[in-house]
Amino acid sequence: MTVQPTRADKFSFGLWTVGWTARDPFGDATRAPLDPAEAVHRLSELGAYGITFHDDDVVPFGSDEHTRDGHLARFRKALDETGLVVPMVTTNLFTHPVFKDGGFTSNDRSVRRFALRKVMRNLDLAAELGARTFVMWGGREGSEYDSAKDVQAALDRYREAVDTLAQYSVDRGYGIRFALEPKPNEPRGDILLPTVGHALAFIAQLQHHELVGVNPEVGHEQMSNLNYTHGIAQALWQGKLFHLDLNGQHGPKFDQDLVFGHGDLLNAFSLVDLLEHGGPGGGPAYDGPRHFDYKPSRTEDYAGVWESAKANMRMYLLLKERAQAFRADPEVREALAASGVAELAEPTLAEGETITDFLADRGTFEEFDPDAAAERGFGFVRLNQLAIDHVLRAR
Amino acid sequence: MTVQPTRADKFSFGLWTVGWTARDPFGDATRAPLDPAEAVHRLSELGAYGITFHDDDVVPFGSDEHTRDGHLARFRKALDETGLVVPMVTTNLFTHPVFKDGGFTSNDRSVRRFALRKVMRNLDLAAELGARTFVMWGGREGSEYDSAKDVQAALDRYREAVDTLAQYSVDRGYGIRFALEPKPNEPRGDILLPTVGHALAFIAQLQHHELVGVNPEVGHEQMSNLNYTHGIAQALWQGKLFHLDLNGQHGPKFDQDLVFGHGDLLNAFSLVDLLEHGGPGGGPAYDGPRHFDYKPSRTEDYAGVWESAKANMRMYLLLKERAQAFRADPEVREALAASGVAELAEPTLAEGETITDFLADRGTFEEFDPDAAAERGFGFVRLNQLAIDHVLRAR
Amino acid sequence: MTVQPTRADKFSFGLWTVGWTARDPFGDATRAPLDPAEAVHRLSELGAYGITFHDDDVVPFGSDEHTRDGHLARFRKALDETGLVVPMVTTNLFTHPVFKDGGFTSNDRSVRRFALRKVMRNLDLAAELGARTFVMWGGREGSEYDSAKDVQAALDRYREAVDTLAQYSVDRGYGIRFALEPKPNEPRGDILLPTVGHALAFIAQLQHHELVGVNPEVGHEQMSNLNYTHGIAQALWQGKLFHLDLNGQHGPKFDQDLVFGHGDLLNAFSLVDLLEHGGPGGGPAYDGPRHFDYKPSRTEDYAGVWESAKANMRMYLLLKERAQAFRADPEVREALAASGVAELAEPTLAEGETITDFLADRGTFEEFDPDAAAERGFGFVRLNQLAIDHVLRAR
Amino acid sequence: MTVQPTRADKFSFGLWTVGWTARDPFGDATRAPLDPAEAVHRLSELGAYGITFHDDDVVPFGSDEHTRDGHLARFRKALDETGLVVPMVTTNLFTHPVFKDGGFTSNDRSVRRFALRKVMRNLDLAAELGARTFVMWGGREGSEYDSAKDVQAALDRYREAVDTLAQYSVDRGYGIRFALEPKPNEPRGDILLPTVGHALAFIAQLQHHELVGVNPEVGHEQMSNLNYTHGIAQALWQGKLFHLDLNGQHGPKFDQDLVFGHGDLLNAFSLVDLLEHGGPGGGPAYDGPRHFDYKPSRTEDYAGVWESAKANMRMYLLLKERAQAFRADPEVREALAASGVAELAEPTLAEGETITDFLADRGTFEEFDPDAAAERGFGFVRLNQLAIDHVLRAR
Repeated sequence: MTVQPTRADKFSFGLWTVGWTARDPFGDATRAPLDPAEAVHRLSELGAYGITFHDDDVVPFGSDEHTRDGHLARFRKALDETGLVVPMVTTNLFTHPVFKDGGFTSNDRSVRRFALRKVMRNLDLAAELGARTFVMWGGREGSEYDSAKDVQAALDRYREAVDTLAQYSVDRGYGIRFALEPKPNEPRGDILLPTVGHALAFIAQLQHHELVGVNPEVGHEQMSNLNYTHGIAQALWQGKLFHLDLNGQHGPKFDQDLVFGHGDLLNAFSLVDLLEHGGPGGGPAYDGPRHFDYKPSRTEDYAGVWESAKANMRMYLLLKERAQAFRADPEVREALAASGVAELAEPTLAEGETITDFLADRGTFEEFDPDAAAERGFGFVRLNQLAIDHVLRAR
Repeated sequence: MTVQPTRADKFSFGLWTVGWTARDPFGDATRAPLDPAEAVHRLSELGAYGITFHDDDVVPFGSDEHTRDGHLARFRKALDETGLVVPMVTTNLFTHPVFKDGGFTSNDRSVRRFALRKVMRNLDLAAELGARTFVMWGGREGSEYDSAKDVQAALDRYREAVDTLAQYSVDRGYGIRFALEPKPNEPRGDILLPTVGHALAFIAQLQHHELVGVNPEVGHEQMSNLNYTHGIAQALWQGKLFHLDLNGQHGPKFDQDLVFGHGDLLNAFSLVDLLEHGGPGGGPAYDGPRHFDYKPSRTEDYAGVWESAKANMRMYLLLKERAQAFRADPEVREALAASGVAELAEPTLAEGETITDFLADRGTFEEFDPDAAAERGFGFVRLNQLAIDHVLRAR
Repeated sequence: MTVQPTRADKFSFGLWTVGWTARDPFGDATRAPLDPAEAVHRLSELGAYGITFHDDDVVPFGSDEHTRDGHLARFRKALDETGLVVPMVTTNLFTHPVFKDGGFTSNDRSVRRFALRKVMRNLDLAAELGARTFVMWGGREGSEYDSAKDVQAALDRYREAVDTLAQYSVDRGYGIRFALEPKPNEPRGDILLPTVGHALAFIAQLQHHELVGVNPEVGHEQMSNLNYTHGIAQALWQGKLFHLDLNGQHGPKFDQDLVFGHGDLLNAFSLVDLLEHGGPGGGPAYDGPRHFDYKPSRTEDYAGVWESAKANMRMYLLLKERAQAFRADPEVREALAASGVAELAEPTLAEGETITDFLADRGTFEEFDPDAAAERGFGFVRLNQLAIDHVLRAR
Repeated sequence: MTVQPTRADKFSFGLWTVGWTARDPFGDATRAPLDPAEAVHRLSELGAYGITFHDDDVVPFGSDEHTRDGHLARFRKALDETGLVVPMVTTNLFTHPVFKDGGFTSNDRSVRRFALRKVMRNLDLAAELGARTFVMWGGREGSEYDSAKDVQAALDRYREAVDTLAQYSVDRGYGIRFALEPKPNEPRGDILLPTVGHALAFIAQLQHHELVGVNPEVGHEQMSNLNYTHGIAQALWQGKLFHLDLNGQHGPKFDQDLVFGHGDLLNAFSLVDLLEHGGPGGGPAYDGPRHFDYKPSRTEDYAGVWESAKANMRMYLLLKERAQAFRADPEVREALAASGVAELAEPTLAEGETITDFLADRGTFEEFDPDAAAERGFGFVRLNQLAIDHVLRAR
């Protein structure tokens, strides 16, 4: 089955994904560093439309201005040659030892100040490269020991940081939106804003809440054994799905960053269906970049790296094709109706029905027979089998 | 060590806790039903100040008015005799088969309407009994199969339900606040609003958001291997900790509902410290009921049931005593300072410092030496050992 | 795609699966009891070849002889009418309150003795019905509190029980083999023999170890987030895969008992491939019953129950078809070779190579260049994508 | 409370623990390398009796003979000066890229051969330093993708490797015992021999099974949410607890390697109780080294490193003291008896009782009243509270 990615598919990759040299907590790098310009060219050839990066991916931490300019010039040249865009830029507040207790929420105020400045500088770069979204993953914002971190104060500082950066972007007229990336743990024992929910809740407390959304990663939610599609649905429902990270994971363990679809395949299917088509009852779909944040396995050489990059896009396109067939299948429509899936979009109270009216409707309560109503079979297993049949192309 | 609960400790228990007859998914009940009036008397003798219940705990589902009145009269009499209060009432939208696909978000609209009416009736009772908080655990609001539930539509219906009930309460002048109780799964495969974060995020979307907070349960967050103390801190930070459920759990498995402190003891310590004293940097403490939502193990007879009820309060009081000693210990204060714990309460930007000022401060960035700053040791392990020493009364 | 189960597929179902009335820890039954005879007829019509049961499924606990005989006669009649076989019988030492602290390892010796006798009686029945395998799931053998159970003594008693029962079977000439079913928790906080590994290790300590193997359940291993296919491979490798329970699960949470393949689809694929074809290097396959131990979701009526029964078999057959295509695909063979999968079947030391020879081979160590050898890319991602392509029928 | 470690406590540390420079998957090292000789001196001063290491910890991978000799001489000198012993040596088959698909079970036969030779050389060193135990953690023996590894063939190769090494040790007269260290995942997606149980089961298949036991690590079992004390009890029961790794972990997430007792405190208590005193019914205790395999948190400088080393020993000694008081408390003894804990050591069949006798005992079955027997309350919650009271020194 030929599935060929095109720019219209809006596939993007982190530079740090194909560029990961495969150093892990127990092992040394197995691959030589990849030149960012080569990454741009290869991803372009494979059909991607965009590339993203952390400041330190393109310009090594602590480079002087001259070195920095050189790195950026080479990178830009590759972008120009290929037409690849930079839809998103992100920041690294986790690699350097100075961030060992966090960036925005380090117990050390001088570190917090340095972190803010580092990100401001990075925002300048993001704007310069035309990025529309700026992702912030607070991987070091957290603690191992409950007494070591005043979580309420930390959230105050986190809010201060995000609002300050948003104000900075507004002041400069960058037109950039921010997306917070939740993760429950690793590298910290417990990370602040551990799930999509916690991040959305935090955002509602911001002064610049309208500029801030989420960037949920498949594996990060699945590390807490949460349903990623459900989390995405809530983010869409709240109008806050500004960006997302596609990859694969096998439940609560270390962050695996497998190829998209190489973990929980059925959840990947429902995700693609939601992103492409929105909720069955008319809830919004997603029109941003389909961004892959994965790691080519440490066992692979560069041939394997490019195979894995292709595999991400292939998985997405195959699942998209199956989701289209699923939605179009008359038997599926009949099964959805039998299961009442669309019925849920109908408000519980009728249009114009007041609480007084509602209380007066004896058929709703006094004369309602719950035992009889309970006999309805919802047909969910049949519906699920139809979905899997489409995943498997067995119909 | 004598620790004697008093009414001032504000300990409350769910009627369904000591009254659980120990039927589980693989076994029949091992204890005879407990008379609610007896529960009231026994809990009062043990030092509790309050009792809580689901509508169906006191009045069996589907009772006629006469039967209902009789049950309630006996229950009230016990309250009057003991002086126990009813600080919270909750609702059962999960036991009867009619709720098999949920109450507020069932795909079946007639079920949604019935559920709303059932809860309204229960609100009348809650108000009548003087409850200040109404808890809603949506245990059946969810799905097993992604295609079976339109999550965005479900959140619309959930919002409609909560806002309708809040309006009903306002209309009647009940002065009741609502508290949503998150849970990730069980009995549904995936439950909507799976964590404290998701519930807080949802609440921010409500019309009556000021009337709605959360009721987080220790075990429910720990079933996702999230840090309960962190979740509580975020809820306090957002002003939304309206109530809470104390119990014990051993990580991601079925909902164990052990005695408080009989699961993750160190996290229970930091929780009590936070509830009693607030954040070290001045963040709010909690002044509501200390409510136990646990299950006496199925191996126990009624002697064991009352031992387990006592154990909950004993654990809380022992940990409270240790938390007080921890906060008062001069060496702890010194260690907290060395770890910069209080430093985090200091804003990152100075008072009155503008972004322009901040960018001009070369010491923050251009002349900041991250390598030197990274040499600071935070002393977190020493601080944690001091905390454990206090838990163990080893100092 | 038509996939029609036949008796040759050796599909069997627990009577308690389609017969589950859907009572769960938070809800009452949603379905009326199913007559065992009807279950036999319906499963036969759907293409199953066998049915299995716990003693108490067919004959209610504590029935007198006359009642017992009546139940059994009806059940047998249905078997005779349909030709369904009873390849396995299992025992219920978990429902009745007397087993609240276990059967074989209850702290109460009188309970242990009763449990042994109950199982002996059940073995008589198993033999009478021609069962070749007797499964024992020790769901109540465990504890919630570490000090409450002397685990070493418990393992002594467990061994005593299994050896006594094996001896009983030998004495009677029943020719039955035993299969222990591991589970990590639920209903107990921690269950003894929590994984396939622990059960295999225990079996090696038995006097009658040759008569005892394992009955691993998909969901039980996945509740510990272990790779089920790996566990099955080790059981096969040790010659101990006497039986198995197929179903679906979404990682570490309560025991979901979903339809086979409705959880981790990719692991289900590799499982079917292994069961049908054995290891790529010639390791044994499995020729016993393909037994489904699942629960039709609580949302379903009986139409949904039978749909779910069909779905189990359909999933197995679809995956079997894909596994056959995967094994036959020349590109897969080439990829397997490139990945060295078959190379692993070759012994590390050459035939006849002594340790002395091995130490003398300088090419193996002194002259071996690990950096050069490390450059080999294993091509595992490409191979995995090929496997998924076959699952998705995308080639 | 003064608890002062002495050599009699048999505390040992991995050189790689205090020597960890705190490089993690998302961050660079935060501490300078530690000279092995200094580690020896500092640990000696703190009260440890032993130090352990991987070959590559003392002698960098690929060192020539001269360099190797120099490193070893300095290390030995430190041992001689302090009197510290080397009770255990282990091997590194995971850091170098050549082991990216494993050592003993790499799909690449030349890697397997190199790995075996590397370990043989390391065994020579272990013997020379007087180590009695040789630990093998197969962290890279596993896979990310089910089709990439023939598990049955891998177990063949694993067995071949362990038996060959055991034979080598026997041939040389080293008198060394081997201990396999299980881990479920990280760095591989799924590691072979994922739990204590799987390792024990594998060992039973070895030709030299008598020379091979297990080295279970607290965190590794808890990453699968298994009860570590239960696992240790089974290993003791099978006579296979040859060594162990003490540390702390917060459930299923990345491998945290916290200080012992800084994770699940109550399970740490029951563990120490078991190691020190054996099973209540007389099952064996443990008399080997109390070995800490932890990582000083990345936030710490070297002052924090030594604080963390002390904390491990302090935690063990505090828990040991509490366990002694627990065992000696008359009320605990009474509670244990009431719970039937010791009753479990009594065989289920009486001495000399045959199966025929047993079947003839009507009181066991025909005249046994299960409902009456089920009324016994086991008093487990009270017993657990007594245990926690001792942990907390609240009695």
